[in-house]
Amino acid sequence: MKKDLAIVLISGGMDSCVTAAIANETYRLAALHVNYGQRTEARELAAFNAIADHYQAEKRLAVSIEHLKVIGGSALTDSTIPVPDSGQSGASSIPITYVPFRNAHLLAIATSWAEVIGATKIFIGAVEEDSSGYPDCREVFYHAFNKVIEMGTRPETRIEIVTPLIHMKKGEIVTTGTNSGAPLHLTWSCYQNSDKACGTCESCVLRLKGFHEANRKDPIPYA
Amino acid sequence: MKKDLAIVLISGGMDSCVTAAIANETYRLAALHVNYGQRTEARELAAFNAIADHYQAEKRLAVSIEHLKVIGGSALTDSTIPVPDSGQSGASSIPITYVPFRNAHLLAIATSWAEVIGATKIFIGAVEEDSSGYPDCREVFYHAFNKVIEMGTRPETRIEIVTPLIHMKKGEIVTTGTNSGAPLHLTWSCYQNSDKACGTCESCVLRLKGFHEANRKDPIPYA
Repeated sequence: MKKDLAIVLISGGMDSCVTAAIANETYRLAALHVNYGQRTEARELAAFNAIADHYQAEKRLAVSIEHLKVIGGSALTDSTIPVPDSGQSGASSIPITYVPFRNAHLLAIATSWAEVIGATKIFIGAVEEDSSGYPDCREVFYHAFNKVIEMGTRPETRIEIVTPLIHMKKGEIVTTGTNSGAPLHLTWSCYQNSDKACGTCESCVLRLKGFHEANRKDPIPYA
Repeated sequence: MKKDLAIVLISGGMDSCVTAAIANETYRLAALHVNYGQRTEARELAAFNAIADHYQAEKRLAVSIEHLKVIGGSALTDSTIPVPDSGQSGASSIPITYVPFRNAHLLAIATSWAEVIGATKIFIGAVEEDSSGYPDCREVFYHAFNKVIEMGTRPETRIEIVTPLIHMKKGEIVTTGTNSGAPLHLTWSCYQNSDKACGTCESCVLRLKGFHEANRKDPIPYA
């Protein structure tokens, strides 16, 4: 009997799907998706709904925020900035696909919802080392955010962010997902396309690396 | 010659107007307003624009977020929960006008915008002691959020939240605003009405207390 309710942030990608599989082992699920004006949103929303259906999420919330697209500054939200192929990110240590401070928006939404529905955990599938190097995917960021939650909510509220994949390699994520029966065939990772994954953007390259390391075949179609 | 750019969160109320006056002494201004589905938003947006005009803000951004209204849990965003008169907030130590974790959303938007436009400060007119007791108006919350900004943005980004009113009494805020020429006649504070302020909601009562303590007459109309 699962007693506590946990919010799972589900982008529709592989990492969030495996995170939902892990959360589902212990918690009742509240599935949360945020549309922030990314290029492939319609495809990601379809993946979110399919994953939430698969886990029979008790609650479901999909919200749209316009401001990250209005603010811009990222290839994911500004159509005038091309999505680079993997390894072509230029001089900065942070890729141009970094959406400035994006995960803080996702966590703020999750925290407000958690406080209202009484969820005690917020699961997010952030990956630190084996990832694109976004600053808001680092464990130190989530530790700091837990302090913000403690200080910025009602004194009786107890909400904690959980990042089960944070130190996993992509291959481990695929293995963990496969072993836990995560519906990876329902997920979508490509930053560029919505029908067949491009196979060359940062996100596709990381995903394919994971399946290669796990010695598994990726079930989604590639161009 | 003002060199650095600062974002000022301007709700349209008295506190944010005085905060803009303080920021304007040292920084070039980028005015930010967030509509989160509050009852009196149209009136607040008009006040925001009037204040931004007054200070000839170099940049201006007004964004709407739907999710705090969808999530609910507050008399300010859920029309089925009545706005109580001051002192009628019930058993909890936190008033029912508390919008769960609202200020984290405002700061996330401000931080993303600051990172893109190169602003180095985010001014917010939060008041700790002499206020409604919202947890996300406390100095500890802003200190914790500064750490989240440090951890969640690019390594070269430097953004700091500034809360010049945090320890002021309401009377001091009115005096500071008057002395610095803040256009208090352009502001709006009432949670309930948009034409003449009700004079009885928490926000009106705090505002009137400030003018009383400062021995000044409030220039806005009351019912």
